[in-house]
Amino acid sequence: MSDAAMKLVVVGAAGRMGQTLIRLIHSIDGVTLHAAIERPGSPFVGKDAGEISGLGANGIIIGDDPLAAFLHAEGVLDFTSPAGTVEFAGLAAQARIVHVVGTTGCSDEDNAKIAAAARHARVVKSGNMSLGVNLLSVLVQQAAQALDPADWDIEILEMHHKRKVDAPSGTALLFGEAAAKGRNIDLAAKSVRVRDGHTGPREAGTIGFATLRGGSVIGEHSVLFAGEGETVTLSHSATDRSIFARGAIKAALWARDKKPGLYSMLDVLGLSSH
Amino acid sequence: MSDAAMKLVVVGAAGRMGQTLIRLIHSIDGVTLHAAIERPGSPFVGKDAGEISGLGANGIIIGDDPLAAFLHAEGVLDFTSPAGTVEFAGLAAQARIVHVVGTTGCSDEDNAKIAAAARHARVVKSGNMSLGVNLLSVLVQQAAQALDPADWDIEILEMHHKRKVDAPSGTALLFGEAAAKGRNIDLAAKSVRVRDGHTGPREAGTIGFATLRGGSVIGEHSVLFAGEGETVTLSHSATDRSIFARGAIKAALWARDKKPGLYSMLDVLGLSSH
Amino acid sequence: MSDAAMKLVVVGAAGRMGQTLIRLIHSIDGVTLHAAIERPGSPFVGKDAGEISGLGANGIIIGDDPLAAFLHAEGVLDFTSPAGTVEFAGLAAQARIVHVVGTTGCSDEDNAKIAAAARHARVVKSGNMSLGVNLLSVLVQQAAQALDPADWDIEILEMHHKRKVDAPSGTALLFGEAAAKGRNIDLAAKSVRVRDGHTGPREAGTIGFATLRGGSVIGEHSVLFAGEGETVTLSHSATDRSIFARGAIKAALWARDKKPGLYSMLDVLGLSSH
Amino acid sequence: MSDAAMKLVVVGAAGRMGQTLIRLIHSIDGVTLHAAIERPGSPFVGKDAGEISGLGANGIIIGDDPLAAFLHAEGVLDFTSPAGTVEFAGLAAQARIVHVVGTTGCSDEDNAKIAAAARHARVVKSGNMSLGVNLLSVLVQQAAQALDPADWDIEILEMHHKRKVDAPSGTALLFGEAAAKGRNIDLAAKSVRVRDGHTGPREAGTIGFATLRGGSVIGEHSVLFAGEGETVTLSHSATDRSIFARGAIKAALWARDKKPGLYSMLDVLGLSSH
Repeated sequence: MSDAAMKLVVVGAAGRMGQTLIRLIHSIDGVTLHAAIERPGSPFVGKDAGEISGLGANGIIIGDDPLAAFLHAEGVLDFTSPAGTVEFAGLAAQARIVHVVGTTGCSDEDNAKIAAAARHARVVKSGNMSLGVNLLSVLVQQAAQALDPADWDIEILEMHHKRKVDAPSGTALLFGEAAAKGRNIDLAAKSVRVRDGHTGPREAGTIGFATLRGGSVIGEHSVLFAGEGETVTLSHSATDRSIFARGAIKAALWARDKKPGLYSMLDVLGLSSH
Repeated sequence: MSDAAMKLVVVGAAGRMGQTLIRLIHSIDGVTLHAAIERPGSPFVGKDAGEISGLGANGIIIGDDPLAAFLHAEGVLDFTSPAGTVEFAGLAAQARIVHVVGTTGCSDEDNAKIAAAARHARVVKSGNMSLGVNLLSVLVQQAAQALDPADWDIEILEMHHKRKVDAPSGTALLFGEAAAKGRNIDLAAKSVRVRDGHTGPREAGTIGFATLRGGSVIGEHSVLFAGEGETVTLSHSATDRSIFARGAIKAALWARDKKPGLYSMLDVLGLSSH
Repeated sequence: MSDAAMKLVVVGAAGRMGQTLIRLIHSIDGVTLHAAIERPGSPFVGKDAGEISGLGANGIIIGDDPLAAFLHAEGVLDFTSPAGTVEFAGLAAQARIVHVVGTTGCSDEDNAKIAAAARHARVVKSGNMSLGVNLLSVLVQQAAQALDPADWDIEILEMHHKRKVDAPSGTALLFGEAAAKGRNIDLAAKSVRVRDGHTGPREAGTIGFATLRGGSVIGEHSVLFAGEGETVTLSHSATDRSIFARGAIKAALWARDKKPGLYSMLDVLGLSSH
Repeated sequence: MSDAAMKLVVVGAAGRMGQTLIRLIHSIDGVTLHAAIERPGSPFVGKDAGEISGLGANGIIIGDDPLAAFLHAEGVLDFTSPAGTVEFAGLAAQARIVHVVGTTGCSDEDNAKIAAAARHARVVKSGNMSLGVNLLSVLVQQAAQALDPADWDIEILEMHHKRKVDAPSGTALLFGEAAAKGRNIDLAAKSVRVRDGHTGPREAGTIGFATLRGGSVIGEHSVLFAGEGETVTLSHSATDRSIFARGAIKAALWARDKKPGLYSMLDVLGLSSH
């Protein structure tokens, strides 16, 4: 049975991420678009999902009844909102299907509800759905744990396009947290986020950040471990915003034959420590 | 007692690596040069070890009796030859001290003798004594294991100085072996070592090598995992040949309070899986 | 008059590059789509150019009469075929407009005809329309000329996606030619395109190539000049195939107020030596 | 005559740079150490220059009479102090030899005196004697001039060892000045030296700086020109502090057969625009 393409529902189907998911499901082997859902009242309900996403009409008409869609599907891909995700988690549990959650900003209460749903659904939830970023965060933590802070200095460099309005990037901070966890320190207390003028020598044990901005760069991150005479650099380069949608589909396929539970991308990568 | 500087013996004291070890012991806190040994008949026996290594006279006269030197020492640093290392391992076992072995080219028979000595000595032995290279090889193996070969292509790039006469470097092959182990494949069967002219599309599951040569570059290595829309790169840059000596001293300090046994640099890094 | 948006014709409008040009003209200030042309008999003649390119209908119907289109336009963007380009050059000369030519594979005879047309048209023609690649080739030539081959080794590294079937890339060879021109040597006679096994030390004065393949990488090129104790690296990274279309539009705008003649992207960059 | 090794005098012979110069002259073909000079009263006067520099005795005794040394020499290498350099320039003019000046901190008055001496001496003076850095500054200026500030963002990244106490590095600022000159703007008015928190989108035309600190990194600099879909990066990596001494010797050899005058490293590289 697992040989047939996995039947996936896209919620938030008319949004930017929904459209990307629909296009990718079309191009990736082993998955098929079962249904596309928008919230009741959306002007996109009733339109062809393929046409909306730029693929050309594919006969999947955007609907507004998620449960009906879930009942005969195997998984749902969800980059919507905390409120939407909590609702979809409950419905996915009823349908006993896979629920991949890339939604950010969930409160503790939201997360508790999602965890409750995971008693019946197979939920994969991560703040960042890129396989590469998740892998790198594990490697950064391990490197930070292995290398003596007295001898090795950690620096985190990121570059993004000229329109980005904040610094450092969320992913840079995620890598910083991974490094701090590896060293068993508090990131905020040990961060150096600005260097200009007379800085004095670098304080051992700190984690430095540096930011570049320019052009259309989608996302470049490097974590450097600089020692005497040698430097180890762990880098991630994103050249396509579809990597988050791609990771979500990978997660759905991974979870297809798993037991109900709450998983993360680290489980998908086989790197979870639990 | 462990607060006092660790008393180290350097064997092969007048060689290039021996001199580097003597200079580094002088500059690193927590270690002290207890004795310096050359083989009987060496013209350096009887000379001042500090003077030979460029530090200026330090009163440690190069001797040719390793056992006498080991008896009141806590560790021996050894980048000599297989024959020398087998002998020193036996003596280190008698003296019940730490034996750090960076010697390469040992036969299976040699290794068996060293393992036998490790019942009484604390032996740390690695083909490459750099902390960074050893760390990276573990991370490469993990990344190779986590990332699906159908989606991620592994490439290994190295650059060395213009005088290097072979390609790829031993360290590039070491990373290749780590990647192959992570994927549970045979490196030789899956390596692509040359690309020129009409190559056809890249075959999934292979591991590619590329080599740069020029200037005085001591050693640059990158392992790339290239997927759709994202690339993870794990790199090591060596800018000083002393990193091997530095790693050996780190290993000696690490082994100081361990039980007798045969260890590797992965144990020193806390990354060993056993 | 030059304040009004420049009126551009896209020839080969339904092809991949034609569609990219139509989308970019829509998004870039200072240019407007005047007409879109396909060859007579093309099934796309009579269709809406905006719709074909994914923008949504824009009222520009694809036609098959280039001269009529050119007469009231200010420039034509042409990534078609040598035969098409020769014809368009003649018509652009009649219309006395700008003709930007990204077509490759022109014979000497074709080029002679294009040069003849450039007595009346302002023709900008380059084998590679990327501003960055053209700039880098000039810088590579200068660096190669300035740095003594006895002391500095030139290496060219490129990475492309896993589907690319040849090596090194055309752009890597273009940079190799620039370096060889700077050194006044013959590239073919001095290239080292393969290194594997026992290579011996690097021969001074050679230019080495190395190739990486993997993932979806659009195009990464680095030219390294490695000396004793220092390395200069000149790199180009392409993350979007639209850079060639973008360069063509830039060239059209640059040529708008120039005299008739045959120009290259180096003229657009202000880097031409004539 | 020019086939014989060029006879060089090292002033400030017992200092760190003087010692490096003496060692390099020993290892580079085409130059020979004619004399080594310290200031009168220095405790090193009368000592063997080879021994002081770690080469082993070479019979060149450090003296304190520069004119006597210059009269039969062909060039003097000078990384001393402004006062010393002004004096040596006058003596080099009397001796009509080459004077290579790496001294920093000269006042306008000092520079006027050096320029006056250059009527008779061949003076090569630069704030940074590395060939690579000087080359890169020219390339950066050209790239900045060629690329439209509306479309291309300039960012300057540097990394140095953990002991460096200021940021950005002098070389990063030198590259910033080169970029500003290429764009005909004032660097100080257009620099962005800090990014943290809510920064807003990048302002077109600015030049950003970012700083990394860690380990023993001698000096890494990159100037990025980031456009839509492509990035050009010009980088310099220093792995040995001897590059400044090496550049000075190169400058002396270059100036050997030139006419009296005041030259810079750009002349040595053949990249001067005058």
